[in-house]
Amino acid sequence: MKRFYSKNIQSNYIYLEDNEAQHCTKVLRCKQGDKIEILNGEGKRFEAEIQAINKHEVQAQIIRILQTETVNKNKLSVAICPTKNPARFEWFLEKVTEIGVHQIFPILTTRTEKQSIKQDRMQNIVLSAAKQSSQLFFPILHELQPLKNVIESDNFEQHFIAHCKDEKQHLKNAYSPNQSAIILIGPEGDFTSEEINIALNKNYIPVSLGNSILRVETAGVVACSIIQMVNEI
Amino acid sequence: MKRFYSKNIQSNYIYLEDNEAQHCTKVLRCKQGDKIEILNGEGKRFEAEIQAINKHEVQAQIIRILQTETVNKNKLSVAICPTKNPARFEWFLEKVTEIGVHQIFPILTTRTEKQSIKQDRMQNIVLSAAKQSSQLFFPILHELQPLKNVIESDNFEQHFIAHCKDEKQHLKNAYSPNQSAIILIGPEGDFTSEEINIALNKNYIPVSLGNSILRVETAGVVACSIIQMVNEI
Repeated sequence: MKRFYSKNIQSNYIYLEDNEAQHCTKVLRCKQGDKIEILNGEGKRFEAEIQAINKHEVQAQIIRILQTETVNKNKLSVAICPTKNPARFEWFLEKVTEIGVHQIFPILTTRTEKQSIKQDRMQNIVLSAAKQSSQLFFPILHELQPLKNVIESDNFEQHFIAHCKDEKQHLKNAYSPNQSAIILIGPEGDFTSEEINIALNKNYIPVSLGNSILRVETAGVVACSIIQMVNEI
Repeated sequence: MKRFYSKNIQSNYIYLEDNEAQHCTKVLRCKQGDKIEILNGEGKRFEAEIQAINKHEVQAQIIRILQTETVNKNKLSVAICPTKNPARFEWFLEKVTEIGVHQIFPILTTRTEKQSIKQDRMQNIVLSAAKQSSQLFFPILHELQPLKNVIESDNFEQHFIAHCKDEKQHLKNAYSPNQSAIILIGPEGDFTSEEINIALNKNYIPVSLGNSILRVETAGVVACSIIQMVNEI
């Protein structure tokens, strides 16, 4: 069944808006009476039937709730620098969304080469990956911001930093299952000592993601994969 | 230090050949007397000094062995279908090489959409990812072949199949650490029941890679990440 996203739910109707409505009617050519699947990105998956198609809106009647979760199983949030090659960062976004991630914080550090991201484009990549992989909770993609802001404003149960200096314990051992956690992934060329110290002073725990030398975007994906694996039975 | 690949070692000299020699002299413009790093893809990393640069060959004298391993730590081999979009398969090759994989078997199944791969191009992607991530043992990329051949000709200690049907145990629980293993990753649209039965009859164990719905290429990467994680201390 074709899958869409909408938060606009009124009594037993769901309304697809803007791009989602366009995608439904113009691209996938759905018609009145078609049955579709809708995710609200906040724990629910519905089966619905299209009632009316307007210019910028599709009205669908809820037939039943296919799936519902009250707690977001995605515990890890990732703070990571945009990569010089945007395709690598886009790939990172798609993959962590598929695997399952809570929040994504694109960050600026001393050695961040890429100083900007196309927020809308990135948001769309996350949205379509979330729909494609039928995520009950969609990742929150934040605006690009300085590392310092993320470290100071965070509210996670556990805090990790993956930098390249000296021996560290493996994330799988450092992480206590089912707690919310954030991991800082260093840029190519790593965090500066000053940046690492700022994190350490905020009780961030240095962790390793394994023996391999990973690219920035790969490190982000492997971190998500590790946390999901620890939390899955 | 610039990193290259060569298996051509004679007494205390290493010879870069063909593309590697070209890359060294034409692209990276290395000169006589330059110190370089060379991986043999079979457990050794050398420091060497360029002695002579010929048309299709670079002669380098070994200064010392920087790193040596006798046993390949990469225990997982992956049998996977080429994806419709070649970029996704190339991405898979790069990422599993970074994370660590033993052998890659591109396979043809009933529902494989893409019936061919550019072997040389794929081989180069593996090679550069292996150099970039300084892998001591390079993955073996096999030619595209029918699933049946892989199942019949295998010599692994453990055998897993990741298909989408019914409940399965998680790969992390099914896998016994530090044993060689192969995992079959289904194509988009999954394996056919017949293909699954062929594997089951050869004692392949059905496994899950987690709760998320993963694309083919993501499943391959997550499988490698899980096995590495289980084996790492």
